[in-house]
Amino acid sequence: MAIKLNKNFENIKQSYLFSEIAARVRKYSAENSNAKIIRLGIGDVTLPLTPTVISAMHKAVDEMANQSTFRGYAPEYGYDFIRSAVADYYKKFNVSLLANEVFVSDGAKSDIGNIVDIFGDNDIVIPDPVYPVYMDSNLMSGRKIKLILASEENDFLPMPDLLDGGSAVIYLCSPNNPTGAVYNREQLKVWVSYAVKSGSVIIFDSAYEAYIKGNYPHSIYEIEGAKSCAIEICSLSKTAGFTGTRCAWTVIPDELVIDGVKLNTRWARRQATKFNGVPYVIQRAAEAALTKQGQSESAELVKYYMNNARLISDVLKKKNIWYKGGICSPYIWLKCPNNMGSWEFFDYLLEKLQVVGTPGEGFGKGGEGYFRLTSFGSLEATLEAISRFDAKL
Amino acid sequence: MAIKLNKNFENIKQSYLFSEIAARVRKYSAENSNAKIIRLGIGDVTLPLTPTVISAMHKAVDEMANQSTFRGYAPEYGYDFIRSAVADYYKKFNVSLLANEVFVSDGAKSDIGNIVDIFGDNDIVIPDPVYPVYMDSNLMSGRKIKLILASEENDFLPMPDLLDGGSAVIYLCSPNNPTGAVYNREQLKVWVSYAVKSGSVIIFDSAYEAYIKGNYPHSIYEIEGAKSCAIEICSLSKTAGFTGTRCAWTVIPDELVIDGVKLNTRWARRQATKFNGVPYVIQRAAEAALTKQGQSESAELVKYYMNNARLISDVLKKKNIWYKGGICSPYIWLKCPNNMGSWEFFDYLLEKLQVVGTPGEGFGKGGEGYFRLTSFGSLEATLEAISRFDAKL
Repeated sequence: MAIKLNKNFENIKQSYLFSEIAARVRKYSAENSNAKIIRLGIGDVTLPLTPTVISAMHKAVDEMANQSTFRGYAPEYGYDFIRSAVADYYKKFNVSLLANEVFVSDGAKSDIGNIVDIFGDNDIVIPDPVYPVYMDSNLMSGRKIKLILASEENDFLPMPDLLDGGSAVIYLCSPNNPTGAVYNREQLKVWVSYAVKSGSVIIFDSAYEAYIKGNYPHSIYEIEGAKSCAIEICSLSKTAGFTGTRCAWTVIPDELVIDGVKLNTRWARRQATKFNGVPYVIQRAAEAALTKQGQSESAELVKYYMNNARLISDVLKKKNIWYKGGICSPYIWLKCPNNMGSWEFFDYLLEKLQVVGTPGEGFGKGGEGYFRLTSFGSLEATLEAISRFDAKL
Repeated sequence: MAIKLNKNFENIKQSYLFSEIAARVRKYSAENSNAKIIRLGIGDVTLPLTPTVISAMHKAVDEMANQSTFRGYAPEYGYDFIRSAVADYYKKFNVSLLANEVFVSDGAKSDIGNIVDIFGDNDIVIPDPVYPVYMDSNLMSGRKIKLILASEENDFLPMPDLLDGGSAVIYLCSPNNPTGAVYNREQLKVWVSYAVKSGSVIIFDSAYEAYIKGNYPHSIYEIEGAKSCAIEICSLSKTAGFTGTRCAWTVIPDELVIDGVKLNTRWARRQATKFNGVPYVIQRAAEAALTKQGQSESAELVKYYMNNARLISDVLKKKNIWYKGGICSPYIWLKCPNNMGSWEFFDYLLEKLQVVGTPGEGFGKGGEGYFRLTSFGSLEATLEAISRFDAKL
């Protein structure tokens, strides 16, 4: 009798959302080789790395070329210089972290997927629609999932009144991917107080914090008490254009203790066993992105994308298409026109307008009938997409 | 009631072996600030990246600086150029692979740790002593582990006669870390035939294949039938000095099918969900390392380290200390002199000679009384260590 596979894989869709989209686009391209496709689908940046980052990378590559400055294995959780740089970054939000509370990794997706390892078999609370990795990684581990609906009724910001008061691992994403909705301070206070009371742990995905405008919290640790109940995962992917450069971090405060066990220690053990650190060159790139100059250059990237968001919003307004987002987030969340289903609208946009977006349904049942556009295209591509929307939607 | 943690973490040592060693060395250094410590402990390379790799990295960094050549998200399994380069590399061993059978990642340690995700609750067969990640990652998942003793009696190459004929996930490492023992072709045939017959899957760790001299198999796929029962994990860490640069691969042949399910597809789903690809710059570095010129430069690194291995072997011979390894592997596996325990010998070397090695016990109970030295130091450091061995052992 052969070995057993992990049966839980049978409970997830066979293909990851963005792999499925890529496959459909590849097929269409192959059959329509002249089509000028504009990709506003996957949330992938298009502007190059900034000068400060590039110059730090060149310098680090040169260090790797000489025996006296060469670096072998990095510390599994990141060099002190980058753990400290991240901790410093949080001072902007009046959040005080210790360097050892910061774990540097190759990506928020990896950390979100792998964090499951340290937990037992708990209820898992996930907003619907949301970034698919929360769901898929928990399904793979056979966890019981409770979806909480993000809908027009709650402004796509589900609150704990949807829950039963029991302990759970709760995923929150703010600014939200895909809806662009952002929790305000009062709402996060309610979540933190719920987590403390119920013995829950919040996994707070702040990957889009750099897009926030106004007085919304960038970090859950801006809320009193959060350090005892929340893990925060953030990334340079969208902040500094690192999607193809790969650097992120997970914060686990020392105060986060369950049954006498520090979760910080547990994650440290997991990472020391199953991860071997981020490339030295990339850690230096990340350090550069977090300097004052690096941050100011990154802010220009964000500004550029948010101008795209405004332009997309304008044409949707003009076309009387309902949408949200695009203010504190690079995503526009729209209702598919003419009551189209979201994959139907996906195919329609691809075939009639040669524009790729992301079907809301791919983010969960709550996304049915909705659609996500990103503002991460180039200005030229975005303008071209807009003119196609204007002419053909 | 609070959420539950993964209780299995209580079954593993609180600290990962190399973290423990680093901590002891840090403590000693702090208390003896003048000590000139020589590190022959963790298997970390010291020679810089080679010119071909460095130049590919600079070029890739420049590409990331321009919008027209910038790269965002890489394909989760690696760009075609690197998957093909790895497949080509195997032609050296008369092994024919498809690019889609190769999954590129940030490290063999990550892949070895994460591969557990795709399996159910099977018996796990692990040689003892061995690289601790096989054990720890399976303990974290609550798996039942059957150790097979690698001892002087079996030349540190345990064979399937130690097993009961039932299906299992079987970890093999050849050349072996820590013992330096290498399976020959006949022995691997026995393993493959056992795996096929019992419905087992072999996870073959070939991270040290570049150190092989003579007619030993570099890849398990050199053995007929292996594609239907084996996963192979390899890395550029030791081959091309990538320990701080991070690039490895896992091969899952299309023929590897369990109960009608292709393991290739399962790993693809795991990686697409919990991993977001290797940095573009690093993929270009890896591609360069696999070119003809890159390989020839890497061979010089291996030659340099193997000269160290010979020098260490010579002094042990002179001192009548029993050892193995150092021929097809960068590791020397010695018996602690004067019946010392392996942590006892660790402390002795650190305190009396200021040399850091790795206690055999850290690789499992079978390693008690043994000790690992690496040849990855600089020639100067190795010579200095040798003269201390000569004078004080």
